[in-house]
Amino acid sequence: MSDERKSQASSLLATHHPSRITSVELISTGSELLSGRTVNTHAQTLAQKLRPLGLNLTRDTTVPDDRAAIAEAVRDALARVDLVFVSGGLGGTSDDLTRDALAQLTGAKLVRHAASLAALEKRYAAMARPVTEVARRQVMVLEGGEGLLNPVGLAPGMMLPHDGKTIFVLPGPPREFVGVLETGVLPRLGKMGRPVFQGLEKLFLCTGLGETEIAERLEKIGLPTPEIEVGYCASAGQIEVRLAAAPEHARLLETQAVAVRTALGAAIFAEERIGLEEAVGRLLTAQHKTLAVAESCTGGLIGHRLTQIAGSSAYFLGGVIAYANESKIRELGVARELLERHGAVSEEVARAMAAGVRTRFGADYGVATTGIAGPEGGTVEKPVGTVWLAVADAAGTVAKLRCFPTTREHVKLWSSQQALDLLRRRLEEF
Amino acid sequence: MSDERKSQASSLLATHHPSRITSVELISTGSELLSGRTVNTHAQTLAQKLRPLGLNLTRDTTVPDDRAAIAEAVRDALARVDLVFVSGGLGGTSDDLTRDALAQLTGAKLVRHAASLAALEKRYAAMARPVTEVARRQVMVLEGGEGLLNPVGLAPGMMLPHDGKTIFVLPGPPREFVGVLETGVLPRLGKMGRPVFQGLEKLFLCTGLGETEIAERLEKIGLPTPEIEVGYCASAGQIEVRLAAAPEHARLLETQAVAVRTALGAAIFAEERIGLEEAVGRLLTAQHKTLAVAESCTGGLIGHRLTQIAGSSAYFLGGVIAYANESKIRELGVARELLERHGAVSEEVARAMAAGVRTRFGADYGVATTGIAGPEGGTVEKPVGTVWLAVADAAGTVAKLRCFPTTREHVKLWSSQQALDLLRRRLEEF
Repeated sequence: MSDERKSQASSLLATHHPSRITSVELISTGSELLSGRTVNTHAQTLAQKLRPLGLNLTRDTTVPDDRAAIAEAVRDALARVDLVFVSGGLGGTSDDLTRDALAQLTGAKLVRHAASLAALEKRYAAMARPVTEVARRQVMVLEGGEGLLNPVGLAPGMMLPHDGKTIFVLPGPPREFVGVLETGVLPRLGKMGRPVFQGLEKLFLCTGLGETEIAERLEKIGLPTPEIEVGYCASAGQIEVRLAAAPEHARLLETQAVAVRTALGAAIFAEERIGLEEAVGRLLTAQHKTLAVAESCTGGLIGHRLTQIAGSSAYFLGGVIAYANESKIRELGVARELLERHGAVSEEVARAMAAGVRTRFGADYGVATTGIAGPEGGTVEKPVGTVWLAVADAAGTVAKLRCFPTTREHVKLWSSQQALDLLRRRLEEF
Repeated sequence: MSDERKSQASSLLATHHPSRITSVELISTGSELLSGRTVNTHAQTLAQKLRPLGLNLTRDTTVPDDRAAIAEAVRDALARVDLVFVSGGLGGTSDDLTRDALAQLTGAKLVRHAASLAALEKRYAAMARPVTEVARRQVMVLEGGEGLLNPVGLAPGMMLPHDGKTIFVLPGPPREFVGVLETGVLPRLGKMGRPVFQGLEKLFLCTGLGETEIAERLEKIGLPTPEIEVGYCASAGQIEVRLAAAPEHARLLETQAVAVRTALGAAIFAEERIGLEEAVGRLLTAQHKTLAVAESCTGGLIGHRLTQIAGSSAYFLGGVIAYANESKIRELGVARELLERHGAVSEEVARAMAAGVRTRFGADYGVATTGIAGPEGGTVEKPVGTVWLAVADAAGTVAKLRCFPTTREHVKLWSSQQALDLLRRRLEEF
C-alpha cells in the first residue's frame, strides 16, 4: 500500500482487450520538459480526451529537441501501436525539429498549409507587421498529410497516414495542444470509427480515512474479488477508491458499490472526480446556504479554492485573510484577551474567528483556520504543522485540532482540505 | 515563436559534450500516469536534482503497471545511457511490478532489506497492528543491489549495479520519490565521482512584454549569436528568457547579460527562477513595507500566493476577500453610490478597494482586484475576463484595466499576476 498512486485500469484492459487498436502512444518533444522547468501535462490531457473514445494511452516518451531522438521514438512507437501522437517542436525557430524528424522518417516533403498561412497573414496584418520567414516556417506541413488549423496559435497540427497507421502531430504549448486536439483530432478520430471499449468503474472520493484503513474495511466485505478490481489514489487529504469491472459484471459492480457505501459511510464525499470545494459548493447550493471564511495559516487558499468553481458567488460571500493578529481583532472581533491568553493558534481563537466572520458577513456558515505553516514559528507545545480548524453555524461552533508536520505548502493544502471537510460533514448532518 | 516552451539546453550539450556519461534516463511506471488521473512530476523533480551534479535527463518513458513493458523500457534505456532511474511499482499489492520486472531483467533474486523491515515493524507496532504479508512484500530488494531507506514511506529504493551500469529505483509517491532521491541517491551519485559539466546560463524573468516583443528587442542587440543561445519559456503572465553559453564564453555571456538588462529594463522582475510573489516579498522586506489585499475576482489567490513564501508574515498583514458587493461596502468602505453608479467591476471601485484595505489594515500598500472571472456574468461592455487592478500607497492610487478572455482559472491567475506586477513596479520606483 505504500505506493499510493496506483491503478488497475491497464490490467483490466489487458485481460479483456489486449488490442493494439485501442492503444495509443504519445511522443512528447521538448528539452524544456526534461530540464526541470516544465511539467509535461500532455499525457494527462490526451488520456482524458481519448478515454471516452475507448482509446487508451499506453506509453508516453519524452525526448529532447533532437531530430534523431524524435524520429527514433516515433518509429519505435509505430512498431507497437497503430495510432501515435507527437507533441511540440512546431514553432519556426531552430529548436523546432518535429517536422524535419517526421519528414526524414516518412520521406514526405514539406508544403505550406494554405489555411494556416492565410490565418497567419491576417493576424500579422492586424498587428501591422510584415510576415517574416521564421513565422512562415510554422505553417509547413508534410505532403500527403492533412493540416489541422490551430484555433489558438499559429502552427497547425497534422494528421499523417503512414504505412496503414496514423500519426497525429500537435503543437507543444498546452492551450494549443488542447485546441488542435479538440477541433482537429477528435472529430477525425470519431469518423475513423474506431471500436469503443470501456471497462466499467465506480469512484469513491474519501476524506478522513487513510488508505490502509479503507483497504481493511473493503477487505472485510470481500473486496477485491476476481471480477471486481480495486485501485487507490491518494493525494493531500483525500483518497480515491476505484472499483473496476468488465461490462459483463455490471450488476455485480452495482451490488458491491452499495456495500462500499455502507463500509465507508460519511468518509465518501463524492462518487465522481470533483474536488472537496465543489462537493461543499453543491451542498451549500442545495441547502440555499451561504459561507464566509476567516483564514489565517491558509492565507486565502480556501477562498481561492471555493472561487475556482463557476457559480460560487451564489453561496460564497467572501471573508477575511486574518494573517496578522491585529486583523483577527479588528476584522473578526476576536477578543484581544483570548489571543493573549491562548495564543493565535488555539481552539478559542479558531472558534472566535469562525463565529466572527459568520456574523460579520451575515453568512449561514463561517469557516476558520489558524495554524503554524512553518518553516519558522514552531514551539515544543505547538510544532510547525499545528492547525486549529473551526466551523460556526446557527447551532454553534465545532473545532478540530490537526497536526501535519510537513512543508509550508502542504500544511496550507491539508489545512484547507480539513477545513472544507469539517464544513462538509456539518452540512451533511442537515 | 508559436511554440512557447522551448529550450536550447540540449543542443548546447550536444555540441559540447555529446557524452552518454552525463546522460540519464527515467522510466516512470504506473497506469495512473497514463490514465489521465495524475500528472507525472518525477521528470521535473529528477532533472532539477541532477542538474547541479552535471547530469542531464535525456528521456522520460512512462509505461503502465505491466511487467514486460517495464523490463523492455529499462533494457532500451540501458542501451542508450549508463544511468537509469525507475520510479513506482514498489508497493506490496498486485499492481506493483517493478521489482519483478527488474528481477526478470537482471536475473537477481529478491531479498528482504533488513533496515526497512525494522522500520516497518516499528511503525506497525506503534499503530498496534500486526505486520501483514502485503506490508512485508514492500521491503524486498534485489540481491546484489543496495536498499535505500525510505525516510517518508515504507518501500525502500534500490541502487542496482548491472553490466557496468547503474539502475536507481525510487518509490512512486512524489514525497517518497524526493525523500529517497535526496537521502539515498544524491549522496551516492556524489561519491561515484561523475564528471561535472555545466553550461553557463543567465536567466531573466519578465512580465509586461510578450515573447515576440522580447525576441525583437534581443534581435536588435544582436542576440542570439553563434556563442550565445537564447531560449524562451512562457507561462501565465510571465516569460522566462535564458541565455546559454559554453564555459569558455563566460565573459561574453556577462557582456550580453548587461545588454539584455538595458533592452528589457523594468520588464525583468528577477534573474533567478522565483515567482512574482517572492520578488514582491523581497522588495517589501528590503523597504520595510507592509501589504494588505482586497480580492474580489481572485477570491483569495493573491493572499494564497503571498503566503506560500516562508516569512511572508513579516510584510503581509492579510486582507479581505470581498466577493459579495455588500462586503466591499462593509469591509472596505467602498461607497455604495460608487458601486451603483459604476458597477463592481470598475476603476472607481478598484481604487476604493485598494485604498480601503490599505487604511483598514494600516498597511503601506493596498492591492485590489475586481473582475469577471466567468464563465457567467459577462456583458457586451464588460465581457468575461475584464479585470480592474489597483495599488494604493501613501502617494496615491494607480489602477489598470486588463482583459483576459479565457477560462475562469486563467482569469484568476492572470489577474493575480497583473496585480502583483503593478505592485512590483510601484515598489521599484522607490
